[in-house]
Amino acid sequence: MKFYDCQTAPSPRRVRMFIAEKHLNIETVQVDLRNGEQLSEAFLAVNPRATVPVIETDSGARFLSTAGCRAYLEASHPEPALLGRDATERAEVADLIAAIEADAFMAVAECLRNSAKGMRGRALTGPQSYAQIPELAERGRTRAGRFLPELNAALEGREFLVGETLTAADIDAFVFVEFSQWIKLDVPATLTNLARWRTAVAARPSAGL
Amino acid sequence: MKFYDCQTAPSPRRVRMFIAEKHLNIETVQVDLRNGEQLSEAFLAVNPRATVPVIETDSGARFLSTAGCRAYLEASHPEPALLGRDATERAEVADLIAAIEADAFMAVAECLRNSAKGMRGRALTGPQSYAQIPELAERGRTRAGRFLPELNAALEGREFLVGETLTAADIDAFVFVEFSQWIKLDVPATLTNLARWRTAVAARPSAGL
Repeated sequence: MKFYDCQTAPSPRRVRMFIAEKHLNIETVQVDLRNGEQLSEAFLAVNPRATVPVIETDSGARFLSTAGCRAYLEASHPEPALLGRDATERAEVADLIAAIEADAFMAVAECLRNSAKGMRGRALTGPQSYAQIPELAERGRTRAGRFLPELNAALEGREFLVGETLTAADIDAFVFVEFSQWIKLDVPATLTNLARWRTAVAARPSAGL
Repeated sequence: MKFYDCQTAPSPRRVRMFIAEKHLNIETVQVDLRNGEQLSEAFLAVNPRATVPVIETDSGARFLSTAGCRAYLEASHPEPALLGRDATERAEVADLIAAIEADAFMAVAECLRNSAKGMRGRALTGPQSYAQIPELAERGRTRAGRFLPELNAALEGREFLVGETLTAADIDAFVFVEFSQWIKLDVPATLTNLARWRTAVAARPSAGL
């Protein structure tokens, strides 16, 4: 198996942490997003969508999204379960991943990609070029800021977002909070649940990779 | 169990078709999105995110996203499998759902919500109001149009998108193609795989609900 990663990018980190929490050793290939390697002919042959993460199996099958990579790893290496242990947990984890994706990750990405000079023409991931929309940068910042108290509320009286152990929901929420620093969005000191949980997740070996 | 639906909206249709393909009978509650019922105090008590679909279990647990509702139904009623039968299929279905969500559904929604007069201040779903961004309407239409040939290519030589039977990937792709008519985006006659598959999916009883 092969994992196409980019050490500096948030999306592949969601899979990198997932792999580490599964205690798997997978050969890792770094893709240099900062220098546009995802748009090279060689990488487009791996993933025409021009994104990481990608998981490639020994039989040559490739999974091209965070969700696809993690669905494969969870089904092929069920323990420890990171997508929920029963129907209710699976649904709760899926709900949180969906909310974090749409309202948190996409919000930070919208802010960053629609404002950074180095991202001109790269307002969206993928092989196509899309122009920046400044209003979207503003809106993204607002939305990302609104998500932090939601996360804080979801962590009230809980060690992890779902069940008694870490799941992919915690991974995604953690990577979002880290990613939000790219747009200088700090966690307000009043969000004490979020701060406590963030310190605990940051201390895990998977978070240091 | 209860299913909060809206007969006229694309997102709950993705769960409505899923329920029908599972041959489940679930009490259905219609939420009148056209008249803003999702923003009523009564519905916000069900889902503070102000969206359908929602599944409510007999024990009162609620799942608030398409992914959460379907994860619950798949785990609690595994047959017929609609999220893939093994690790590879599960990953392929997840990959397609992620691509359709980000590049197809969101594209049509961006076009519609950022241009329709009745959607002023409703550029995003949820309890918050966000102003329309006309450039986003244009971009959404372009992106949705670019996804149709991708779907056509994915259907080359295949009856369904993944494996030998219908999965949630087909459901989402089908609901996207139907939804794209709201922005008057027709399937070009040259996309013959897509046209053939669309006719087949449209003939299923689940598509008529």
